Amino acid sequence: MKSIKAATYYVHFKEKGYQELNTLLTKKDYSSIFILVDENSMECCYPKFIPFLETDKRIEVIEIESGEINKNLETCAGVWNAMTELEADRKSLLITLGGGVITDLGGFVASTYKRGIDFVNIPTTLLSMVDASVGGKTGVDLGVLKNQIGLFVNPEMVIIDEDYLATLNERESRSGIAEIIKYGLTYDTKVLSQLKSFNHLTLSNLIHRSIEIKNEVVLEDPKENGLRKILNFGHTLGHAIESYFLESKDKENLTHGEAIAIGMVCESYLSSEVLSLPKEKVLEVKNMITSMYEKVLIKPSDYAAILDLLKHDKKNVNGQVNFVLLNDFEKYQLDCKVSNELIIESIEFYNS
Amino acid sequence: MKSIKAATYYVHFKEKGYQELNTLLTKKDYSSIFILVDENSMECCYPKFIPFLETDKRIEVIEIESGEINKNLETCAGVWNAMTELEADRKSLLITLGGGVITDLGGFVASTYKRGIDFVNIPTTLLSMVDASVGGKTGVDLGVLKNQIGLFVNPEMVIIDEDYLATLNERESRSGIAEIIKYGLTYDTKVLSQLKSFNHLTLSNLIHRSIEIKNEVVLEDPKENGLRKILNFGHTLGHAIESYFLESKDKENLTHGEAIAIGMVCESYLSSEVLSLPKEKVLEVKNMITSMYEKVLIKPSDYAAILDLLKHDKKNVNGQVNFVLLNDFEKYQLDCKVSNELIIESIEFYNS
Repeated sequence: MKSIKAATYYVHFKEKGYQELNTLLTKKDYSSIFILVDENSMECCYPKFIPFLETDKRIEVIEIESGEINKNLETCAGVWNAMTELEADRKSLLITLGGGVITDLGGFVASTYKRGIDFVNIPTTLLSMVDASVGGKTGVDLGVLKNQIGLFVNPEMVIIDEDYLATLNERESRSGIAEIIKYGLTYDTKVLSQLKSFNHLTLSNLIHRSIEIKNEVVLEDPKENGLRKILNFGHTLGHAIESYFLESKDKENLTHGEAIAIGMVCESYLSSEVLSLPKEKVLEVKNMITSMYEKVLIKPSDYAAILDLLKHDKKNVNGQVNFVLLNDFEKYQLDCKVSNELIIESIEFYNS
Repeated sequence: MKSIKAATYYVHFKEKGYQELNTLLTKKDYSSIFILVDENSMECCYPKFIPFLETDKRIEVIEIESGEINKNLETCAGVWNAMTELEADRKSLLITLGGGVITDLGGFVASTYKRGIDFVNIPTTLLSMVDASVGGKTGVDLGVLKNQIGLFVNPEMVIIDEDYLATLNERESRSGIAEIIKYGLTYDTKVLSQLKSFNHLTLSNLIHRSIEIKNEVVLEDPKENGLRKILNFGHTLGHAIESYFLESKDKENLTHGEAIAIGMVCESYLSSEVLSLPKEKVLEVKNMITSMYEKVLIKPSDYAAILDLLKHDKKNVNGQVNFVLLNDFEKYQLDCKVSNELIIESIEFYNS
């Protein structure tokens, strides 16, 4: 599988990745190597990873608790303190080994520790492979607001190895599929047909193509002033719904994929109401999503809180919610304004 | 006073600064303006500043508690939460108005809020004017470790207006002088002679020249791989002493200037022991410092803790403390190793 050249670094696949990592270790002569994991990646991925590492430098493992609920400043402080106690210095390297929480939080922690040390990302979930490999977004949540604190910064390299996926449960795998659907809807519908014949053999290609698409988008618009906003399709409402379920004591948390899957159904509906996305394509999206994800009940009593969370979306300017919507598949329009009534209608469309 | 061109922005002086700020506000069409102050700059600087601001945009003031003790992640979280509640968006501007705690913390908070918003620094203390105007260092302390968390990032502009200095007490003013002495010792001894004839008229020139020197240094070495380390002269021991006094319940906190003044005396002593700095110049430094700063008592029982704090210095690699020392005034040498015994001797030299 061909390496992908991102802004300042490469995404490498399988064995090639570990070779390049060992070359980097030699070249940069790091003083020590820190590996950030959670209890899941420690158990399932770390034993697979560690034999590939060729180094005589000190290796320290820092483990945090898994889950979006721990993607916060308290966890960062814990990691910073651990790195301090273990005497990480400016020539230390941080390797993140885990899902999106680990790579997002790890990148933020590394790039702000002593004003920045090198880091390498090894995403181990389908979601983090297709979503977090390129683009330089790092960060943590502030309260329920997703990725409110963070920065754009690039790793030294990213390694993709699907062998780590064998350890995922089905719900986690499905979480990544939603992002792949997004690439299909907004950028390249061929991805959607590939998804229909989805199996273990096509998975590699789908991951590679997803990273390629995201890379093309972020190279053209690194700071999210235009084109890159298409990557937020389904995320405006999706993030609000994800945050709402995260903070609600009587709701079970949704995976990121489950939340943005709902978001994509709603925002497809909005696209047909506000723009010209054909109704039959809206139904196509809804069918695709509901065949893959269990239906989530969003009650009328939930609407107000979800609308309230929308006003913190990072794309907003002057308090106005800005949706990215579709004129058609592969044809986006930025900065669409939508009334609260229509947003509620779109959730009801999902519910129906 | 001529504007100074830093890496990606300008340092402007007096009226010219406010004109340029108003031009920036028009050009960038910010959605809202946030001003970060502490209770001192709110009382003494904000009323001077606000009449200069020409804008019809919403202005919000966020006040934090003054003092190094509050330069931490908890304060950041408070500011991030306030900005969130006041609906700061990606097109908001943060203006920092205050001393080094405000400009360092404010720059960090701005550049990590929603992955980064613009900020403008208006340092209002002598120390922050000569130390924090250029170089892009932002950050906060982690426990007692100074600036352990932060990043290199540049403001949109810096405004220097000595009118704010009128509000400083004498101890605060002296804190800035130590940094000016550092520029003299390490880079340009003419600064030292100017300091001797120090008065209100020469102050403007000293501030301008200090910023110019720091700018030359950081332009040549932005990421502190070589030359820039001279700016740490006096800071290796100085920071450890500052941290120690900050964490000791029975010691009065030192200002940054007081701490690095001690650090410069000690490191001058080390320079004569390890390198070739003439003894009479060591005495010259000691006399200059002790004529300006009250003697601080560092007891033998304090030594161990200070030595322990040294091992967290950000210049360290592989657990080895790296001093920047002087072969002579204006002639530095990087990465000098010094035994603990000699470090203690240097503190005793200061005490003597």
